[in-house]
Amino acid sequence: MSLLVVGSVAFDTVKTPFGEAEDVLGGSATYFSTAASYFTDVRMVAVVGSDFPEKHINFLKSRNVDVAGLQRASGSTFRWKGEYGYDLNEAKTLETRLNVFETFKPTIPETYRTSDVVFLANIDPVLQREVLHQIERPKLVACDTMNFWIGGKKAELIKTLAETDILLINESEARELADEPNLVRAARIIQKMGPKTLIVKRGEYGALMFHADGVFSAPAYPLESVFDPTGAGDSFAGGFVGYLDNVKNLNETSLRQAMIFGSVMASFNVEDFSLNRMRSLDYKEIESRYREFRRLTFFEDIV
Amino acid sequence: MSLLVVGSVAFDTVKTPFGEAEDVLGGSATYFSTAASYFTDVRMVAVVGSDFPEKHINFLKSRNVDVAGLQRASGSTFRWKGEYGYDLNEAKTLETRLNVFETFKPTIPETYRTSDVVFLANIDPVLQREVLHQIERPKLVACDTMNFWIGGKKAELIKTLAETDILLINESEARELADEPNLVRAARIIQKMGPKTLIVKRGEYGALMFHADGVFSAPAYPLESVFDPTGAGDSFAGGFVGYLDNVKNLNETSLRQAMIFGSVMASFNVEDFSLNRMRSLDYKEIESRYREFRRLTFFEDIV
Repeated sequence: MSLLVVGSVAFDTVKTPFGEAEDVLGGSATYFSTAASYFTDVRMVAVVGSDFPEKHINFLKSRNVDVAGLQRASGSTFRWKGEYGYDLNEAKTLETRLNVFETFKPTIPETYRTSDVVFLANIDPVLQREVLHQIERPKLVACDTMNFWIGGKKAELIKTLAETDILLINESEARELADEPNLVRAARIIQKMGPKTLIVKRGEYGALMFHADGVFSAPAYPLESVFDPTGAGDSFAGGFVGYLDNVKNLNETSLRQAMIFGSVMASFNVEDFSLNRMRSLDYKEIESRYREFRRLTFFEDIV
Repeated sequence: MSLLVVGSVAFDTVKTPFGEAEDVLGGSATYFSTAASYFTDVRMVAVVGSDFPEKHINFLKSRNVDVAGLQRASGSTFRWKGEYGYDLNEAKTLETRLNVFETFKPTIPETYRTSDVVFLANIDPVLQREVLHQIERPKLVACDTMNFWIGGKKAELIKTLAETDILLINESEARELADEPNLVRAARIIQKMGPKTLIVKRGEYGALMFHADGVFSAPAYPLESVFDPTGAGDSFAGGFVGYLDNVKNLNETSLRQAMIFGSVMASFNVEDFSLNRMRSLDYKEIESRYREFRRLTFFEDIV
């Protein structure tokens, strides 16, 4: 199949209890594409400024990411600055400068219009729909969002969700979107908004998948060193959607395996700042960690 | 084998967003014994006051719990009052009246001295050792504790841990005990204190088991209605230790199954106030939920 992502490409400045990184490569589309690139070919739609160095574009190309949809606008690239405490589950945003992202009008190259699978990373739900409507009959639409849009553009978000098959969001966002503290009930409310499948990301506690056939729980990999959680959610989405695009089916078996591949990619990503861990990652390591997830969760039936 | 528990029997007054219960049956030994009683025979060591009604003792007897070690002292039974918000993970203690528990000197009936498995519920670590030393060569010692003892009697607690095989504690307590925010490293530090196996309870996020052979992750059962989390940890311990006593071995397979039986018992317990859900529970329901845990976590290997 063919996988298209629209999202952000950014420079991140991140501080964690374990170190700092300044103006490093980041952004939802970047993390997603790189993680997904281990499973399938990715087409990227995003915008960067005139300050964006060629070496980052070359890195994406080296991962076989199609950057025909990566616009270059005059001005500065989107910048995000955040900090994490010892509780690495939640980032404290210190500064957001949208820059060229503020006037971003995603236009889809002709060659992208036949994409089968579309991932709408966390951007304005109006933009998400603008991209989606330029694609001819996608087979699968997956989507992310955040509290900023749930609070500020809920009506627009709900229109996007009506056209979405799979929604991937954080636990607190799921509760806020459904206005319901119990997660099982929140999931049912959100599924009625459109997405048949809801994936709730819980940081170091793993992820839950709610869909017609019930619930699936994927743990997070217990890591001895979590350096930087930035991009974990987008790396998860990249592993999840990328694997589904690769296996070309959406049955129960594949969805569950995709949840684990998503968890595997997130677990690697948090081991270093920016996309550094994925720069050296090979597919054998991914397979090996997948099997570690099996050992982490397997138990015998009772007789 | 034979399973002995020492802990509290209490009257709880609990408020949750879903209702209130006043002076209902509670206490760590009560929850533990009742949960364990579905798997094995339990011997209880605890103290109640002159206000403790016969009907509660009859309930324990109806679950085949041996109450020869349940002392009756003159005075009032231990009372705990707590409240939960929508985040049901942490109780806010409003009042603790130790009453007869303040001068509790656990003496072990002669018939209990040969117990193979001992569970030291969350009480003063000095009392935990006093009980333990009255048992002839137990085969397995499991233990719980809380931040109150970690903060106030750490040296005594560490002496108890040196004689413990399995420690079951909450996530924040594990971090505090090890003085280490990363859970994987905290586990290694705690294992060096004595317990070869550490079980970290994470409330609605499930539980992790760290031991020589690696890590096992058990999810919590996603419930639509959590009424009262009181006793969830002790019900978990009851299912876990009770199952191990029943199968009479401690191999990897049994330990993992025990983690799931613990999770099953905790998931039932939180469905109602006090021990109400366990009053009507039968073993077929336990087996059925065990299989639901399999469906919740199972995924295929990759080829």
